Amino acid sequence: MSESFSVQSHTGPYQVHFAGGALARLNTLVSGTIHVLVDARIARLYEEPLRGLRAASVTLVEAEERAKTLEEMPLYVRKLLEQGFRRHHRLVAIGGGIIQDITCFLAATMMRGVDWLFFPTTLLAQADSCIGSKSSINVGSFKNVLGTFTPPREVFIDVGLLRTLDERDVRSGVGEILKVHAIDGPESFQDVAKAYDRLFEDDAVLAHYIQRALRIKKRFIEEDEFDRGPRQIFNYGHTFGHAIEAATEFAVPHGIAVTMGMDLANFLAWRLGHSDRQTFDRMHPTLRRNYRGYETLSIPGDRFFAALQHDKKNIGQREVTAILPDMRGCPVRVQRPADAPFQDACTSYFEGCRLA
Amino acid sequence: MSESFSVQSHTGPYQVHFAGGALARLNTLVSGTIHVLVDARIARLYEEPLRGLRAASVTLVEAEERAKTLEEMPLYVRKLLEQGFRRHHRLVAIGGGIIQDITCFLAATMMRGVDWLFFPTTLLAQADSCIGSKSSINVGSFKNVLGTFTPPREVFIDVGLLRTLDERDVRSGVGEILKVHAIDGPESFQDVAKAYDRLFEDDAVLAHYIQRALRIKKRFIEEDEFDRGPRQIFNYGHTFGHAIEAATEFAVPHGIAVTMGMDLANFLAWRLGHSDRQTFDRMHPTLRRNYRGYETLSIPGDRFFAALQHDKKNIGQREVTAILPDMRGCPVRVQRPADAPFQDACTSYFEGCRLA
Repeated sequence: MSESFSVQSHTGPYQVHFAGGALARLNTLVSGTIHVLVDARIARLYEEPLRGLRAASVTLVEAEERAKTLEEMPLYVRKLLEQGFRRHHRLVAIGGGIIQDITCFLAATMMRGVDWLFFPTTLLAQADSCIGSKSSINVGSFKNVLGTFTPPREVFIDVGLLRTLDERDVRSGVGEILKVHAIDGPESFQDVAKAYDRLFEDDAVLAHYIQRALRIKKRFIEEDEFDRGPRQIFNYGHTFGHAIEAATEFAVPHGIAVTMGMDLANFLAWRLGHSDRQTFDRMHPTLRRNYRGYETLSIPGDRFFAALQHDKKNIGQREVTAILPDMRGCPVRVQRPADAPFQDACTSYFEGCRLA
Repeated sequence: MSESFSVQSHTGPYQVHFAGGALARLNTLVSGTIHVLVDARIARLYEEPLRGLRAASVTLVEAEERAKTLEEMPLYVRKLLEQGFRRHHRLVAIGGGIIQDITCFLAATMMRGVDWLFFPTTLLAQADSCIGSKSSINVGSFKNVLGTFTPPREVFIDVGLLRTLDERDVRSGVGEILKVHAIDGPESFQDVAKAYDRLFEDDAVLAHYIQRALRIKKRFIEEDEFDRGPRQIFNYGHTFGHAIEAATEFAVPHGIAVTMGMDLANFLAWRLGHSDRQTFDRMHPTLRRNYRGYETLSIPGDRFFAALQHDKKNIGQREVTAILPDMRGCPVRVQRPADAPFQDACTSYFEGCRLA
């Protein structure tokens, strides 16, 4: 595979580069007047390479949910303006999803739109969120209720930056890689499932599947950037994953909750007659390995169902819209009542079937 | 002229309707689940027609600069979410530029974009800002540093709503009407200049020139919605107008500052050799009438020049980008040093020439 590819968007094409030693070479990769927002953890780990950074300003951001609330945005804007930010300057994000969301939102709104560049430093961001234009901002305790579609101008992916992640965060990213491959089809999923162990051991294998995941996603976002049709199947595992996160007060990392959400989707599809048992059985061993350590975590049913109802993608109060596998094992969009059979099946899953 | 026309935008075409008795007929004009943001003054004046309004929520907004700061946005979002706002609901703005800016920004960012409708109630909004997609949000004391391009789906213009404006606010809107006609060319400007008195006396005449102004603007925003080229001449009078507003701590209403800004632009163009005296002389009597009451207002030079340097459209510290008339009397974009001759000419204007 080549070392870079481009993604079409409503603001023109943008480039995704695979670049080793990206932070050390930052000054050669990025020119012009830049203002950097960097994850504070990354700034501590890469103090040496970042020291020589030529930037008009550098803002350290602690990667916490609070940092990406609308309430915090005025602080970033004021700091940037006080440091001389102008309309032709560019923002550079170095970090994971939270730094991405903040920078993307600022780029979308400052001076009615400025350019931004992205160096993702988590696997979730490298393998999934770095393309697709979306930002998600919290308002108080309402999660991800604000956002825009604002792609970066360039993305630089360096798998070397993932070496400092703990295993749980890598598994979180692997959850999204599994999801994207499942969307591509059963063959694609089986391919990455076979390579599962090596994702954690071999940078080259991981880089291969990151690029594969992005190239699958590229096909969908180029077709449906604004998430009105085909792209919606990327919510596979997400409607349930978000509800699992909310019901457990975010005790489960995002990509691991998504892994469990896919497993639940497959289970529901089988039990409610959308799909058959074979699809659940085929994917379950890999998904279960990826959410290991959380198989027995209690997920209170009442909070799970309440969170489902509040999902911004659900239109009615008594309906749930989810991505479930069909008879071919391909995820499709299903809108169905959140009735007793549905609730019973969810409860069975949480009470035992996910352990099987 | 017809009673409605459409404007092309990056999100598709949107409709501008001329509709009498719009507030009384609101329930017939707007269907579906709506959440209304309404200028508190309008809500008091039109209590009766608004009483029967079928809306999921109504938020009264005091039309003050503070209301459109980023710091206030979480309040609106939380209120809307608490009142059950969902992704397929629509926002309705009833008011002037401040209500427009707030609603437009919320529509751009809530759930990554929702539809909004606009009932402008000031002449500035009816004759100018209601089309063109822009929102402008303050951050602390930094004015209009945030925004997006997010057109409404429909605009309903009812000149009857302008009857409660005081004369100064009407003149402010007339300032933008004069500007747009000047951009269209000398003949267009002379046409509206001849009708000047009747704009204040006859609703039909005012409606005619509102629609003319919007149709002139439509040509430019359809060509250059994102303000990167041809549309920039709409800053005629604005670079200087904004600096006049800032230097006087907003003692001058926006459209009246723009009127004075056009007069200053014409004066500078003549004195600095971009244009000739004739253009200044031709437009001065009408412009002067429109900023009457402010001819002797002190405009401190140091604050005026400081404000010019901070304009987000100016790239360098020692350069100023302004729209000045050329030898034909047509406004064009000029980038020039903010040198001694430039400063001297500005000072002459403020010290006496605007009174002439």
